[in-house]
Amino acid sequence: MSRFLSSEASRLNPYTPGEQPQDQLYIKLNTNESPFPPSPKVLEAVSQEEIGKLYLYSDPACTVLNAAVAKRYHLQSENVLTGNGSDEILAFAFRAFCGEGRDVAYADITYGFYTAQSALFGLKETIIPLREDFSLNVEDYLEFPGTVVIANPNAPTGMTAPLPGIRRLLERDPNRVVIIDEAYVDFGGESCVPLLKEYENLLVVQTMSKSRSLAGGRVGFALGSAELIADLNRVKYSFNPYNINRLSLLAGAAAIEDEDYFQACCKAVQETRSWTVKALKTLGFTVLPSCANFVFAKSDRLSGETLYRRLKDRGILVRWFGRERIRDYLRITIGSQKQMEALIEAAAALLKEGN
Amino acid sequence: MSRFLSSEASRLNPYTPGEQPQDQLYIKLNTNESPFPPSPKVLEAVSQEEIGKLYLYSDPACTVLNAAVAKRYHLQSENVLTGNGSDEILAFAFRAFCGEGRDVAYADITYGFYTAQSALFGLKETIIPLREDFSLNVEDYLEFPGTVVIANPNAPTGMTAPLPGIRRLLERDPNRVVIIDEAYVDFGGESCVPLLKEYENLLVVQTMSKSRSLAGGRVGFALGSAELIADLNRVKYSFNPYNINRLSLLAGAAAIEDEDYFQACCKAVQETRSWTVKALKTLGFTVLPSCANFVFAKSDRLSGETLYRRLKDRGILVRWFGRERIRDYLRITIGSQKQMEALIEAAAALLKEGN
Repeated sequence: MSRFLSSEASRLNPYTPGEQPQDQLYIKLNTNESPFPPSPKVLEAVSQEEIGKLYLYSDPACTVLNAAVAKRYHLQSENVLTGNGSDEILAFAFRAFCGEGRDVAYADITYGFYTAQSALFGLKETIIPLREDFSLNVEDYLEFPGTVVIANPNAPTGMTAPLPGIRRLLERDPNRVVIIDEAYVDFGGESCVPLLKEYENLLVVQTMSKSRSLAGGRVGFALGSAELIADLNRVKYSFNPYNINRLSLLAGAAAIEDEDYFQACCKAVQETRSWTVKALKTLGFTVLPSCANFVFAKSDRLSGETLYRRLKDRGILVRWFGRERIRDYLRITIGSQKQMEALIEAAAALLKEGN
Repeated sequence: MSRFLSSEASRLNPYTPGEQPQDQLYIKLNTNESPFPPSPKVLEAVSQEEIGKLYLYSDPACTVLNAAVAKRYHLQSENVLTGNGSDEILAFAFRAFCGEGRDVAYADITYGFYTAQSALFGLKETIIPLREDFSLNVEDYLEFPGTVVIANPNAPTGMTAPLPGIRRLLERDPNRVVIIDEAYVDFGGESCVPLLKEYENLLVVQTMSKSRSLAGGRVGFALGSAELIADLNRVKYSFNPYNINRLSLLAGAAAIEDEDYFQACCKAVQETRSWTVKALKTLGFTVLPSCANFVFAKSDRLSGETLYRRLKDRGILVRWFGRERIRDYLRITIGSQKQMEALIEAAAALLKEGN
């Protein structure tokens, strides 16, 4: 921190993304990317002709992309805001719906970005611990007077919060915004999108980084009532009106229109996840029930840190958070079947080696 | 504004980007895009193979792009931050270097985004009017105790602030950050980049949207001391660590490496600008001295609003701001020679028509 930094910025709590080492070819199971390339329709959409148009600004209203997302979810364009990844959308939502007299609440074990963004806007955060078994019980949020953010499925646990509970939360205070971060919902979670027609205080945030194989394209979206979306646009136009580049607008629209490819990818990830969970359990791992494209698991024989480091030595990257309550857990992305076989083989060898 | 909006967000002052009508093919001289396509090297860099890698996250450290920018300006990578357009970088800088006890100052007639971003972070802005002739006199800023932002060349006037004045501003208070927004500098302005070696309180912000024909790619960059850049990264990692997508990282690096193409484009724009200024003056326009890829001009016969509307009726879009001091001025982007000939022809016809 330099002498030039504002006091607000000195209180920031920056997020640490999963490591991207360049020194060796790793099996990368640490940032929840898809093991599958983007849809062939994405490669068609990002044509040389379109690349040649990069001298023109992108459409700040993201008209075509928003319409494609709206169509996929049986909504109107006024119910959609697209962003430069869902992280950007979350930042817009934190600014729009939290502030003086509107605190924000989320779980102790959840996506680390929420706390970074609270610090960015100087928000008062209320941390509501997950239950002993890492389940999120919506009862714990019912009386909280501010904005609630729930990752569902949660990260890094992969566990889901049941919809009836979320419905109660939405109904308890119709003036309170509930943000459901569904980054991982397509791998077996239950989406709140059908509730949008009933509750105008519900904002659903999704991303194309995981289930639509576009992590490097940076496209996320929010679905909500026209009122909430207009509020988010107010922030967007104060921050960065041309927030999505031309090629990602095209890639995102092509990806969301290729429903068959999307379904096939999600199904394959779920099948590989089932195989991986079974294999890990056979090795004596405790594995939380996952509806995401990752599993959260701990060994009964080696610490999380030891496993993380030794897997890395063997060329396999997984995510270890090294913090209270989850110190012995690893978050392991579901890669290809072959990658997961390599993981299981390495884990088995490490457990055999012992301490 | 909905009942859900935070009080902070209700005080926002969103920016209105130049219109992008879809109903007709316009000659678009309203958003300062380049009339030239991106470098052929950009088309090579964004290959089908690279598009196929969109399932992987982009490099959050922007290593390759930052190195390319650093090399071009004879700096180190630690002196560079790249962003999703320079608007994003300006937002990071406003958060990093302004806040409680650090107000921000800029001109009354300048890039409209500064005031939007001040509102975004709840900053106290001090507006320092340009002189009567629209020149920015650095004397007017010397005693201001907070962060100073100067667009140089200024938008929408196109006029430059002389470097000796900026040097005095940097020296007067070494603890005060001076942000020089050089979005248009490549068209004949004098860059502050050579001053970076002398002043660690100087931040230079540039964009690839204009002189490097990448408006639709959304790539901007900041150049400054390692301390200032580290501060900006602190904000970036609190907001959106993967802020640039994979394809724009490649496009940006390719664009900045093609020096010959860049020089040729800048030269062509300056030649067309000279022609345009002369032609406008012949028609009786007052034209401010421009070092940018646009001119700011007013007619002695028709109001700014009338000219704007009638040019639009004839299929030519220019930017009219309709605010105090500049109500009769139009900001006209320098397009291709052919486009400018069409503009002059239309303007001549409108002046002949009269009121």
